[in-house]
Amino acid sequence: MTADYRFLKACRRQQVDRTPVWMMRQAGRYLKEYRALRARHSFLEMCRTPELAAEVTLQPLRRFDFDAAIIFADILLPLPGMGVDLTFAKGEGPVIGNPVRTAADVEALRPLEPDVHVPFLAAAIRMVRRELEDRAPLIGFSGAPFTLASYVLEGGGSKNFVATKTLMYGEPRVWHRFMEKMSDVVVAYLQYQVEAGVQALQLFDSWVGVLSSGDYREFVLPYSTRVLGALEGTVPLIHFGTDTAALLGTMREAGGDVMGVDWRLDLADAWAILGEDVGVQGNLDPITLYAPPEVIEARVARVLQSAGGRAGHIFNLGHGVLPTTPPEHVEVMVEAVHRLSAR
Amino acid sequence: MTADYRFLKACRRQQVDRTPVWMMRQAGRYLKEYRALRARHSFLEMCRTPELAAEVTLQPLRRFDFDAAIIFADILLPLPGMGVDLTFAKGEGPVIGNPVRTAADVEALRPLEPDVHVPFLAAAIRMVRRELEDRAPLIGFSGAPFTLASYVLEGGGSKNFVATKTLMYGEPRVWHRFMEKMSDVVVAYLQYQVEAGVQALQLFDSWVGVLSSGDYREFVLPYSTRVLGALEGTVPLIHFGTDTAALLGTMREAGGDVMGVDWRLDLADAWAILGEDVGVQGNLDPITLYAPPEVIEARVARVLQSAGGRAGHIFNLGHGVLPTTPPEHVEVMVEAVHRLSAR
Repeated sequence: MTADYRFLKACRRQQVDRTPVWMMRQAGRYLKEYRALRARHSFLEMCRTPELAAEVTLQPLRRFDFDAAIIFADILLPLPGMGVDLTFAKGEGPVIGNPVRTAADVEALRPLEPDVHVPFLAAAIRMVRRELEDRAPLIGFSGAPFTLASYVLEGGGSKNFVATKTLMYGEPRVWHRFMEKMSDVVVAYLQYQVEAGVQALQLFDSWVGVLSSGDYREFVLPYSTRVLGALEGTVPLIHFGTDTAALLGTMREAGGDVMGVDWRLDLADAWAILGEDVGVQGNLDPITLYAPPEVIEARVARVLQSAGGRAGHIFNLGHGVLPTTPPEHVEVMVEAVHRLSAR
Repeated sequence: MTADYRFLKACRRQQVDRTPVWMMRQAGRYLKEYRALRARHSFLEMCRTPELAAEVTLQPLRRFDFDAAIIFADILLPLPGMGVDLTFAKGEGPVIGNPVRTAADVEALRPLEPDVHVPFLAAAIRMVRRELEDRAPLIGFSGAPFTLASYVLEGGGSKNFVATKTLMYGEPRVWHRFMEKMSDVVVAYLQYQVEAGVQALQLFDSWVGVLSSGDYREFVLPYSTRVLGALEGTVPLIHFGTDTAALLGTMREAGGDVMGVDWRLDLADAWAILGEDVGVQGNLDPITLYAPPEVIEARVARVLQSAGGRAGHIFNLGHGVLPTTPPEHVEVMVEAVHRLSAR
């Protein structure tokens, strides 16, 4: 059955009847059924309760004709097992109570034991697979070593990544040791999801675009390579970042069957940088979904045109859908992708 | 005298004895002498009091061997004259009390009358020119139409530019009318600075990198072209943006003697995109200044190497210096630029 999923075929650059589409953060706050659950449970509680995570994963599939589900989780879920004190402050996103500052802090980080630290994730994956039956394949994911490291160093989200780059530039040995540990955690976390049954993986290096390609090559590439290499041959791998126009070619070297790109880069230009022997995922500007339906349709058409009907195009937004997005506009997008790409 | 300034020669792509260097936000909070003044005056008061603006403009030139001064001002100073209610909230940056939302809001915006609305700026420019004598040339600046428009639409700084893109995508006629008015304001504001005596101009399109190059071409290029065209032949023009790796070639079409680029793009790659018939300004990652001196020097060397000794390189950070930067590290950078680039 699996072999016939449009999404998985596109990951392998096989011809498909129409372009598959899913949406980063498709399980989330723009849906009122999500907000209804969220009103009664904290964000981490929702992640850690398999029944809730599974329910929220399935919500968008009930509404929209998406070609893939993605397990409801947060890229920071592997951190608490390492000894990182993670909370989600109201309206402020993740807060890390004990940011890493020193070599000793790095040494104190523990390896991830998925069975002990994130068993709820495997349980949620198994529940979703059971409920989805053959409706759509399920994607698992993790933050990439750099993006996870940046949260742990900054103590949360960041604008200028001062702590991250200060360690990287000023104490490269500590940086490399930190990234080694992060890579091991990410590998263990992703392998655990594959064992539980996800049918594809996305590695989110969401903030890597704050680096020059030279810094990426020196400080990040070895670790993303290690992670993607360890998972190669299991399930299709999507390698995603934003702001990557200057480093996409270098990112590609790390691996991935499909490269995710944001809306800044025209897909034809992305393929020109990457070469034709890789899939590309993207790349409608998420803000397009605030525009009237006819504008959404015209812009979907433009993305499809840039992809030029290539095997290996997976339609997505260039980054996650925003919480205030009108859900009926998501419907417009999904319908337009399928209709306009029908072969 | 003017003709011999290293900075102005580089703007014209003439050979120089060593690479000129200045720093965006060089007049600012990382200097304790700035903070001492700021403790007694509000930010807008400092901008609007010629003696204070002139003093703050000169502070970094007393400390460091910078090759240019830049007038102390804010890119949002032209807004109040248009009828935009601008304040600076403590620690939160600019707040606009009456963001533009409708066509009627756009129509209500008034043209800028520099003599009435920003006379303090001309006064400050004249004072600085007098005090600088032949020490260094003085740069004036403005926000570009897009970047100014984004503040007016969002009501301040923004992460996702939802209001900006919603108007752009959903009501293109209103958008174009708004940008026409913004362009006229920016032209008047920059011409006023030239008349007062600035010897170069920088157009800050700081946030334009949130757009795809297709959107830039349709919604921004005509207006940046109009602005830069109106100023052509007066003083050298620097055209700056961040996150522009995917749209630098398109931005170049708008004009400018020098293109400013952030740290993401290697300078050799920037020139490959731009062609050799334009200057390039940049592009040390501002966070480099938090690293130890030997790292700063090595990274300055790398930027100079990427520039390859081309006539037309102006050394700068890739974006503004951050308030917590150690000033002694700025000294390290300036000294290294001059020493390592000496012909």
